[in-house]
Amino acid sequence: MFRTESVFRFVPPVLYTDRLNDDIQKLIEQVRSGDVRALSRAISTVENRAPGWSDLLKALFPHTGQARVLGLTGAPGAGKSTLVDQLARFYRSENRTVGIIAVDPTSPYSGGAILGDRIRMQEHFSDPGIYIRSMATRGSLGGLARTTADVATILDASGRDLIMIETVGVGQDEVDIVRLADVTILILVPGMGDDVQTIKAGIMEIADIFVINKSDRDGAEHVEKEIRTLQSLAMRADGWVPPIVKTIASEGTGIDELEAAITEYEAYLSKKNLTLSKSAENWQERLVEMLRDAMLEKARAQFNDGNLAGLASEVAEHKRDPYSLVEEIAGKVGK
Amino acid sequence: MFRTESVFRFVPPVLYTDRLNDDIQKLIEQVRSGDVRALSRAISTVENRAPGWSDLLKALFPHTGQARVLGLTGAPGAGKSTLVDQLARFYRSENRTVGIIAVDPTSPYSGGAILGDRIRMQEHFSDPGIYIRSMATRGSLGGLARTTADVATILDASGRDLIMIETVGVGQDEVDIVRLADVTILILVPGMGDDVQTIKAGIMEIADIFVINKSDRDGAEHVEKEIRTLQSLAMRADGWVPPIVKTIASEGTGIDELEAAITEYEAYLSKKNLTLSKSAENWQERLVEMLRDAMLEKARAQFNDGNLAGLASEVAEHKRDPYSLVEEIAGKVGK
Repeated sequence: MFRTESVFRFVPPVLYTDRLNDDIQKLIEQVRSGDVRALSRAISTVENRAPGWSDLLKALFPHTGQARVLGLTGAPGAGKSTLVDQLARFYRSENRTVGIIAVDPTSPYSGGAILGDRIRMQEHFSDPGIYIRSMATRGSLGGLARTTADVATILDASGRDLIMIETVGVGQDEVDIVRLADVTILILVPGMGDDVQTIKAGIMEIADIFVINKSDRDGAEHVEKEIRTLQSLAMRADGWVPPIVKTIASEGTGIDELEAAITEYEAYLSKKNLTLSKSAENWQERLVEMLRDAMLEKARAQFNDGNLAGLASEVAEHKRDPYSLVEEIAGKVGK
Repeated sequence: MFRTESVFRFVPPVLYTDRLNDDIQKLIEQVRSGDVRALSRAISTVENRAPGWSDLLKALFPHTGQARVLGLTGAPGAGKSTLVDQLARFYRSENRTVGIIAVDPTSPYSGGAILGDRIRMQEHFSDPGIYIRSMATRGSLGGLARTTADVATILDASGRDLIMIETVGVGQDEVDIVRLADVTILILVPGMGDDVQTIKAGIMEIADIFVINKSDRDGAEHVEKEIRTLQSLAMRADGWVPPIVKTIASEGTGIDELEAAITEYEAYLSKKNLTLSKSAENWQERLVEMLRDAMLEKARAQFNDGNLAGLASEVAEHKRDPYSLVEEIAGKVGK
């Protein structure tokens, strides 16, 4: 029924007609030229795994690596969107182009179309230098982190100077998503109590820069102290001590300092010759994820939907054990 | 480096010595007899994918399906643990045994060992009728939802009457986790503002029962109204209208009503002949997840760690496109 649809959505086979190749070739050129409508079409193609998606990414990949990719994460209500908007404004004032990927934990049924996104889109509508795309938690065939990475590839190849990936900082998905970024920024706010505990546990260790947003609120010093305590417990392998930047995003306060901290971190990596090795580390994990997805496609072909439903029923009735069943199917793949 | 260790942790091959078989056989019997220490050992075996883990699950699966599995989720600070503890007390007063799986978004580096868990363990230490196990976000080879499912299988086969899976309700991981449950309970609290928005988007639709905890606080009616509004927008396919139960978990208020709502939902499913079809639906998704994990194991064998690191470096330097690379490796599997 509906819960399984997203997983078993029919994936049309890639048909290598000349027509398709022509279309994709044209799309690649348009994306490369920075055309915004082509950008949207390319992203949809990849999100939906529509025909040619793979050729598109293969062709665009060699043109990536120019953009600075920022990952911004924090609890709901931490002011991520506002901070991202302010950063976008800052970069635009320097004439740099921006792509924003807003990853929202959205409905498994509605599959995207986020109201807040539309409001933000409207605000920046007149400026083609800011491109915003929302990603839903569901509906992406290859997992959310994977699809986010693909969208970042497209934005990078289209010549955007800055790519900001914004996501709620709870859960493994989000850890995987921020890992895509060159620089990971964790946004905390004073007075969050338990929330800080939760965030801390999951993402504190991968933050390259801490932001205390809404820093005019009571408790900002307390949050800073908590971060410092945590930092005193464990030294990072790369020797970097993540700075703490105080902002009031709604007023634009502290944005310059945040930008300076980002630049400083990049300079540090560069000086220590770590830029490439960090990227290679991230690619190790991404390659495994991509390979797993590719293998799943292969495996899926082993049972068509009807067959799967029947097998699932047998398991639900305890007539069959799922562990042996999966072993058996996996054993058949590729033979 | 450390980030990739969890993914590439060495998995010892299963050695089918008689010794191993004997050990696993004994463990299976001990688990089946309800032995608590065997339970812990069996869970560790499965979590770590230690030798015999698969045989263990295969042998235990036919003995599952007796336990009632509850999934409880909500934002940080909603009072999940307190509510779970109160439900546990309630069931214990009826002489029913309880297994609790607390899924915490914990550090990718520390890999578990949660303080709160230890405190709770201590409180219930004298009662072997309550078994609590914490699960970390990282360190599980097969994904968190998968490992949680495996642990639930073991608890079920060990004869626990009730299994409660408790998790923070943000992110896809959590949606996958609560989907394991027969009954999904979403815990909200008044005055959460943006948090309710976030939770709503992700998990509102899969809740079978809503709990408004800390319901003596201002804003409880507002939360109730929000839920009702949401419910008026879309009817569930199964016709069930999730009831709203008000609790003050810290005082034990509303626990009886919650238990009554759970029983009512199960009776509804039974009356409508939906129990089995719901379970089969969930198994469809789980089978795919299990298959994906199995395929990953196969894929991983295609490149050993050293090889992967080299390929990742080439990708990081943009000397190689990852999309073609993955296609190539996947194409080789099973040949």
